[in-house]
Amino acid sequence: MTRAAGKLRVAFQGAHGAFSEEAAIRLLGRRITCVPRPTFESLFDAIEEGAADLLLAPLENSLAGSVQRSYDLLLESSLHIVGEVVIPIRHHLIGVPGASLEQIRIVQSHPVALAQCEKFFRAHPRIRRVAAEDTAESVREIVAAGDPARAAIASAHAAAVYGGVILARGLEDHRENYTRFVLLAASPTPARGANKLSLVLRLAHRPGALWRALGPFARRGVNLLKIESRPIPGRPWQYHFYLDLRGSLAQPRVRAALQDLKKIAAALRVLGCYRAAALPYSRKKGAER
Amino acid sequence: MTRAAGKLRVAFQGAHGAFSEEAAIRLLGRRITCVPRPTFESLFDAIEEGAADLLLAPLENSLAGSVQRSYDLLLESSLHIVGEVVIPIRHHLIGVPGASLEQIRIVQSHPVALAQCEKFFRAHPRIRRVAAEDTAESVREIVAAGDPARAAIASAHAAAVYGGVILARGLEDHRENYTRFVLLAASPTPARGANKLSLVLRLAHRPGALWRALGPFARRGVNLLKIESRPIPGRPWQYHFYLDLRGSLAQPRVRAALQDLKKIAAALRVLGCYRAAALPYSRKKGAER
Repeated sequence: MTRAAGKLRVAFQGAHGAFSEEAAIRLLGRRITCVPRPTFESLFDAIEEGAADLLLAPLENSLAGSVQRSYDLLLESSLHIVGEVVIPIRHHLIGVPGASLEQIRIVQSHPVALAQCEKFFRAHPRIRRVAAEDTAESVREIVAAGDPARAAIASAHAAAVYGGVILARGLEDHRENYTRFVLLAASPTPARGANKLSLVLRLAHRPGALWRALGPFARRGVNLLKIESRPIPGRPWQYHFYLDLRGSLAQPRVRAALQDLKKIAAALRVLGCYRAAALPYSRKKGAER
Repeated sequence: MTRAAGKLRVAFQGAHGAFSEEAAIRLLGRRITCVPRPTFESLFDAIEEGAADLLLAPLENSLAGSVQRSYDLLLESSLHIVGEVVIPIRHHLIGVPGASLEQIRIVQSHPVALAQCEKFFRAHPRIRRVAAEDTAESVREIVAAGDPARAAIASAHAAAVYGGVILARGLEDHRENYTRFVLLAASPTPARGANKLSLVLRLAHRPGALWRALGPFARRGVNLLKIESRPIPGRPWQYHFYLDLRGSLAQPRVRAALQDLKKIAAALRVLGCYRAAALPYSRKKGAER
């Protein structure tokens, strides 16, 4: 995966200072080149275009839930999950130098970040929310605009990158706020210590189909960590099911369960077998598991 | 449910001209008062505030998938699902009178509408997408601004309501584009011909828990129409599961399955038993089922 001529290039969605960039550095260290991509579409094209060796995509936030666009683009691509990382999310209100919270009338940020600060917005009904593509990019824009009535919601890192001032700290409704990212590559990489398996499958439309599909894992004690349904375009009210399982393709019971599932599923694709992320730290007993 | 002193008031999210308003009229007829609410939060508060008798919330689009915010607010509320409706979605590019497609540089709309017109945006890379709260409100805003470089994506109905001009028709990537709404009330209403049941449940965190929870329905031939996972705030990587089932509380096998499920689930709530919507019409063979 490393390049002879330089550092490993890892694409992320957003601008420098984004949570995704922090996640890439946490997973792979500082000796990488982070490649910003403006949209999810351009992120998922980064490897094929030759702009990056790997890409990091957010799949899920512990409060907002699944990042639906990432799931769809993962399926449209032929990429493989080769790693995973979880980072804590803290949202700050970031304004221009000299501004104060009382002056703010418009706050822009990514819709997920806005949704995670509901209590703040309820307490400040005069502030209007504006959805934007990216948290860090929002900081860049409001600093460039220089309007003391405008602020962004983003990380302390983003404030530092663009010279914004933190006007209020920790706006998130819940402290137990984490985002989970997956590292994607053009080829599957056998990961040491792989203990997590991600699949996507399509089932025949008949009673009990999903129950039957989960049976091969349940009967063998393979834990289902997550199930996500996404619509199949052009087939209203039919779904792709994404399963995350605790296990590795190196385990005979997991391979046997997959063999059983192949007989049941109308279509099945292994998205990756990789090492599960640990939470970076636990803020509350019981959160880290 | 009817009011002695006047027409039935039905709240919807968005401005007049919204798809939600069309859905309310399709379900309940023209003899209702449609009550616009700017946000999802204010929509879900409409009955408790006395502003409406019922409210209509979008739960799912056949392309974009679940409306995550609606699921979360439904759970936070104590409302009951008493009906359902599905409407076809056609997206048009709407500009100010005199504008042409070639002039457009900025297009604003609801993020779901923007996401459903990917092919259009790929074909017109010079156009910048701007996320907004609402499709119809976007038309109102761009008409009020009067800038021929700006357009909105919304319905033909919204164009007519606000005096916008349709610059390009049928921008949606897929023709099989429907949105499903649920009608919510403060009390459950026994619906004639009820044939659909919606539940939300929480499970113990152990291998096979979801498989065991689906068993009571699968073994009795009760079809699972949809499963949706939503994160439990404050409990990272634990989920509420929303199930839609084909069946009625009037059926002994459904009641028996629910009794079994109660013994398995850590928490269980029936969201409603109601008459399933038919698709308004089928554009393609096999879509209507």
